[in-house]
Amino acid sequence: MRENQLLAHIHARSANLAAAFGQIVVGPGDDCAVVRAGSGALLLLTVDQLVEGRHFAADVPAADIAHKCIARSVSDIAAMGGTPAWALATGLLPRGFAHADALFDAMSRAAREMSAPLVGGDVATWDGALVLTCTVGGEPHAERGPVLRSGARPGDELWVTGRIGGSVRSGRHLRFTPRVAVGAWLCDALGPDLHAMMDVSDGVGIDASRLAAASGARAVIDLPRVPLHDDAPDALAAIGDGEDYELLFAAAPGLALPARAPDGTPLTRIGSVARGSGCVAIDAAGREHDCAQRGWEHA
Amino acid sequence: MRENQLLAHIHARSANLAAAFGQIVVGPGDDCAVVRAGSGALLLLTVDQLVEGRHFAADVPAADIAHKCIARSVSDIAAMGGTPAWALATGLLPRGFAHADALFDAMSRAAREMSAPLVGGDVATWDGALVLTCTVGGEPHAERGPVLRSGARPGDELWVTGRIGGSVRSGRHLRFTPRVAVGAWLCDALGPDLHAMMDVSDGVGIDASRLAAASGARAVIDLPRVPLHDDAPDALAAIGDGEDYELLFAAAPGLALPARAPDGTPLTRIGSVARGSGCVAIDAAGREHDCAQRGWEHA
Repeated sequence: MRENQLLAHIHARSANLAAAFGQIVVGPGDDCAVVRAGSGALLLLTVDQLVEGRHFAADVPAADIAHKCIARSVSDIAAMGGTPAWALATGLLPRGFAHADALFDAMSRAAREMSAPLVGGDVATWDGALVLTCTVGGEPHAERGPVLRSGARPGDELWVTGRIGGSVRSGRHLRFTPRVAVGAWLCDALGPDLHAMMDVSDGVGIDASRLAAASGARAVIDLPRVPLHDDAPDALAAIGDGEDYELLFAAAPGLALPARAPDGTPLTRIGSVARGSGCVAIDAAGREHDCAQRGWEHA
Repeated sequence: MRENQLLAHIHARSANLAAAFGQIVVGPGDDCAVVRAGSGALLLLTVDQLVEGRHFAADVPAADIAHKCIARSVSDIAAMGGTPAWALATGLLPRGFAHADALFDAMSRAAREMSAPLVGGDVATWDGALVLTCTVGGEPHAERGPVLRSGARPGDELWVTGRIGGSVRSGRHLRFTPRVAVGAWLCDALGPDLHAMMDVSDGVGIDASRLAAASGARAVIDLPRVPLHDDAPDALAAIGDGEDYELLFAAAPGLALPARAPDGTPLTRIGSVARGSGCVAIDAAGREHDCAQRGWEHA
C-alpha cells in the first residue's frame, strides 16, 4: 500500500474522533492536530520523522540534520499561525555513530533558538540507519485561533511567502527558517480575513491541491506570478520541487497586503480560489497544467 | 558513546531549561516532562520508540506491536499519577510491509482504549526495519499534581504494584495494561503522602536505583517481599528482568494501604528508603546485592 492510501485510511478512521473525545478539536489531516488542554486552552501538536537516505544524505553534517529535524515540525506550527512552546525528540542511532553528542547538542540548540525547547526524548542504538523524530507543541494565535487548511472560499486570493523552487538541490531544505513570525503577523494583520493556511513541504502544486480539497474548492495558480529563487528551475518545475517550507495561504480578496512582511519576507499573490475542485497552474500562454501530482508524492 | 552517557549529556544540557523557559516545569530525566500550557494548566509529555529486533521480534503480530507502542508511553503518564489525553505516532515501514493498515488500525484502537486517541502522526516507507514512535500527552492528578521520581525521603516505604519478572519471556511485555487507574487512585488515596513514583520499564533494581538517585537517597529492597509472577525466576533475577511496566512508589511510612487497589491490582511493600545513596537488595540470608546494574542497561 502506498503512503497516500495509508494516510487516507488513517484519516478515515479518525473522522469521528472529535465526536468521541471532547478534547479533540482537529484530528489527523491538517498541519497540526488541535486539542483542548485541561484548562480549555488550545494546543497545536505535530510530529515528523527525519530519515537518513530519505530526508538527508548520509554525509550531511550533524548540525544541519538537527536543524532540519526541529525546523520541519516548527514549520507545521507556523502553518497554523501558531507559536511553538516545546519539543520532544527521538533518536535511533547507528551502532558506533560518532556524532551522537554533537547531533543532540545541535538539536538542543536549534530547539532553543526556535523557541521549542527540548523537554524530553528517547535515544536508542541499532544496526540500521539514523532515524530522528521531532514532536512540537505550540499555541494558536490568541485572537485568530488555529488557521486550518479547510477555510478557503471561492473568490479568495492565494498567496505564498518567500521564494519557491530548488530547495533540495541548493541545500536550503537543511537550513530554512520556519515562518513562525510571518504566520503570527498574518494572523495579527488579517484576522478573520486569513481564511486558510499550510506550509509548503511537498510542493506548491500538490500542497495547493490539498488546501483546495480540504476547503471543497478549486485552486488556480498563475504561474508567471510564482516568486522563484534565482537557482530555481522554471515555475512549472518549481511548484513540483517541494521542501520550500514557505506558507501558502488563502485570504479574502482585495486586501492591501504589503510586498513584504515586517521581517522582510516577501508576500506574493500567486493565484485564486474558485468554485469546483482540483488545482491547476496556468502558464504565460494560457495553458492549464494539473497540479495534483506536482510535488513529492508519498509513494 | 553508550546510551546512558548520551542521556547524561542530554540531561546535563537541559539543567537550566526551566530557568530559561517559563513554560517548563520538569525537563528531561523523569518519566514525563511537565510543561505549562498557555492557560496555566500542566501538561505531561512523553515519547518512546519501538524498534523491530529490539523491543519486539519480527514475527510479533501487528496487534501486539501496536498495543505495546501505545502502552509504553501511556505507562509513563501513569508513572506521574496522570491521565492520558491524546497521542501522536510515527511509523517507518519496511518497503512492501504487508501489515501496515492492520498495524495502524490496531494502534488507533489501542490508543482509544487507553484514552489516548491518536490525533496525528507521520508515515514513511524505507528499506530498513519497522520503527514506531508514540508521543502521549496527559494531565496530572488535579490535587496531587505530577508525582516525580525525586520526592522520596529517608524513612519512606517502597512499594510496587502487580507482580514482577519474566515479562519478556512470557510475552506479557506485549500485552500489559498501563497502571493509569492505580496511579490515579494512589494520588486520590495518599495525596501528599505519595512522595515519588515511576514505572518499572528497565527492571525493579535499576529503576529503584534511579528513583533513589533522583531523590538523593538510598533504596533498600527486601527480596523475599518482591511479588513474583508464577513463571518468574527467583527474586534477585526478577528485579533485573525489566519490562514489567508496574508502578514503583515511595510513600510515607505507616500508611494502611490495602493489599489490592480498587481495580484488584496487588500493592506490595518491597522495601524502604534510607539516608545515603545507591540501591541494595537484601536476600533471605541477609546478603546485600547491589542493584545499580540489575535491569536493562541502555548500552
